[in-house]
Amino acid sequence: MSEPIRIGLLGRGTVGGAFAELLADRADAVAAATGRRPELAGTLTRSAGDFEEILADSDIVVELLGGTDPTREYVVRALEAKKPIVTANKQLLARHGDELFARAREAGVQLRFEAAVAGVIPVIRVVQESFGVTEIAKVFGIVNGTTNFILSEMAATGAAYEATLQRAQELGYAEADPTEDVNGADAAAKMAILARLAFHTPVALEQVAYEGIERVQPDDLAYAKELGLSLKLLGVAERHPDGISVRVFPCFLYPGHPLAPVEGPFNAVMVEAPSITEVTMSGPGAGGIQTASAVLGDVVSIISGEAPVHETRVELPIVSDVSSSFYLHLEVADRPGVLAQVAEVLGRNEVSVKSVVQRGMGDDARLVMVMHEGLESSFRRAVEEIATLEFMRSEPRSIRVIEEEFV
Amino acid sequence: MSEPIRIGLLGRGTVGGAFAELLADRADAVAAATGRRPELAGTLTRSAGDFEEILADSDIVVELLGGTDPTREYVVRALEAKKPIVTANKQLLARHGDELFARAREAGVQLRFEAAVAGVIPVIRVVQESFGVTEIAKVFGIVNGTTNFILSEMAATGAAYEATLQRAQELGYAEADPTEDVNGADAAAKMAILARLAFHTPVALEQVAYEGIERVQPDDLAYAKELGLSLKLLGVAERHPDGISVRVFPCFLYPGHPLAPVEGPFNAVMVEAPSITEVTMSGPGAGGIQTASAVLGDVVSIISGEAPVHETRVELPIVSDVSSSFYLHLEVADRPGVLAQVAEVLGRNEVSVKSVVQRGMGDDARLVMVMHEGLESSFRRAVEEIATLEFMRSEPRSIRVIEEEFV
Repeated sequence: MSEPIRIGLLGRGTVGGAFAELLADRADAVAAATGRRPELAGTLTRSAGDFEEILADSDIVVELLGGTDPTREYVVRALEAKKPIVTANKQLLARHGDELFARAREAGVQLRFEAAVAGVIPVIRVVQESFGVTEIAKVFGIVNGTTNFILSEMAATGAAYEATLQRAQELGYAEADPTEDVNGADAAAKMAILARLAFHTPVALEQVAYEGIERVQPDDLAYAKELGLSLKLLGVAERHPDGISVRVFPCFLYPGHPLAPVEGPFNAVMVEAPSITEVTMSGPGAGGIQTASAVLGDVVSIISGEAPVHETRVELPIVSDVSSSFYLHLEVADRPGVLAQVAEVLGRNEVSVKSVVQRGMGDDARLVMVMHEGLESSFRRAVEEIATLEFMRSEPRSIRVIEEEFV
Repeated sequence: MSEPIRIGLLGRGTVGGAFAELLADRADAVAAATGRRPELAGTLTRSAGDFEEILADSDIVVELLGGTDPTREYVVRALEAKKPIVTANKQLLARHGDELFARAREAGVQLRFEAAVAGVIPVIRVVQESFGVTEIAKVFGIVNGTTNFILSEMAATGAAYEATLQRAQELGYAEADPTEDVNGADAAAKMAILARLAFHTPVALEQVAYEGIERVQPDDLAYAKELGLSLKLLGVAERHPDGISVRVFPCFLYPGHPLAPVEGPFNAVMVEAPSITEVTMSGPGAGGIQTASAVLGDVVSIISGEAPVHETRVELPIVSDVSSSFYLHLEVADRPGVLAQVAEVLGRNEVSVKSVVQRGMGDDARLVMVMHEGLESSFRRAVEEIATLEFMRSEPRSIRVIEEEFV
């Protein structure tokens, strides 16, 4: 094991705090993956810590202060000192991207910013690395969780915009001053960054046309519901024959669109190109621990320097008996007592029935059942036994069922 | 510009041919991104070319031959010669991963394989790099497009398995010998690779329990449809308190599950961990050009060596007038002639109406319209003019509409 790698942390708010915890928690995993164990060199907050001291003592600087002043100066200083930077600061990049990327290039150090757009969804890495030489035609999606939560709620409840915004604030999905989120400015900053990476062209924040959701009425959502449409605040960056467009606007999506099912505070981004068709990525767009995870991924990439060579580090046993829920389809003789016998076998094997439907009559009689989750071995044992019952007209058929609640 | 970088290509089937074309097409973009222009050093096919000659002449070897014999030997030879490798060969990695990863590590060269799992969806990069130190709890998804197409079709048409398989073959979504796809073996190989990366543990192909879709009946899908369920062939790799499980099986998904809307030959993979909640990625799971794109992304990562520093390369103008479809909501006076006047303004501005619904009566009368796609400026001009008509009871409200057909 080489020397530890020292991380200077600027900012200790929600994300900064979560990052410090996550870094400690995953230090062993980082050491195993990169050969170097990370440790905090120091933390700067608005009220404590000396920036120059922390900088001198750090191998990598993680900027989670937010804002552009004095953040921009700190980042410039760090790049001048040839320290690689990880930041989650979309405003900083959307406003000062040209300068900061140029300085990083001059210094020959990495400037990484996965957490600045779409939280833990690795859209920056994918656009820059996987699709870095792809002729991207369009990158678009839901890049603001506050507005997606509000629109999902309005659609579900029929409530007005103001009441729903208040509910979002109570639940922590909207800030006390939600202006930048609901008027589209936050999404515009993220789209400026995405468009720059997708099209390799400078995009200034002022070039992004944006509208928000403040004028959306319950009427609009009622209409949408009737037609099966869903309403989203979309950011869209597109290549045109004579340039690009970068815009943010509320938009109806027809059913079947990959972004239509994205509900609540989730984000999702699609990338389209002739050579890739389309790739969609979705996940939580915010949250302390999720954003901290994106930051940590960047830190690890910087420590690795080069792309990692895969290595197995542990030997884990394979578990074969897993808990599952099952559907069971039985073709049975049509007579009394059949269900009772089946239920008895299931019960004796500790398989609990969630629902049963009896279907058809005579030679077409069937039992269609869904079980509660339980050990697969118990279910298999029960089915084997059921298969031997004399009223069975064919082999039992079973299929797993996944039922989960999503936000 | 430095020396060109020379690519030795093994295999020139569908993917190999697409890769050779894509490489030529994107050579300038690769040169701009990495500083080195790629060129083909030579191509080996089953019937022509000399492997040792191509190897000696290459900086990077791209293996698209498929199979494990003699492919394994070629890859071993290339690694011994310290040449980085890109492969799309899931069988090779699932069967000989331990050996090949160890050899790559010894040689200190990269072995990349994005195209081996889920086609152009960058799941390998994301699991290895973005979530390389994340305590992944579960990685699962639809990793075989043939079976997803068959199940989608069976659900849509009610047709039997055999007839649907034949249709998939006619459409090119299933091979002449579909055994490995429909019995789950193909998905099992991909899950062995994913589980290895997610959990950093060796996973042998024989440890993956798999079932296929051959026994699925129209009955099962009819039942599913009634409850709004969809049936998918899932690969699931999970961490348990005492080990891991890696399995492939057909499974019902409840509506709202992020994988439920994935239809046709598409693939999708979800990654779950406490620190990231869940991230879902979907896209085409196969196709010559799509797979070649994934291979090219790996080649570029190898040439870059280190993670790229972002750089803008062109100056593209911002296009502000974009073609869009719109919804228009007008609160109007309830009297004859209103629709005619609105339609006249729209028509004169070259805005074409797709649908109109008149809603409410008296003080609640409204026109709800959807337009065909057209230039935004024309639509805005028309709406401005409509706003001045004397029967308007409030400002017109408009929202964009996205309607696209997906596979």
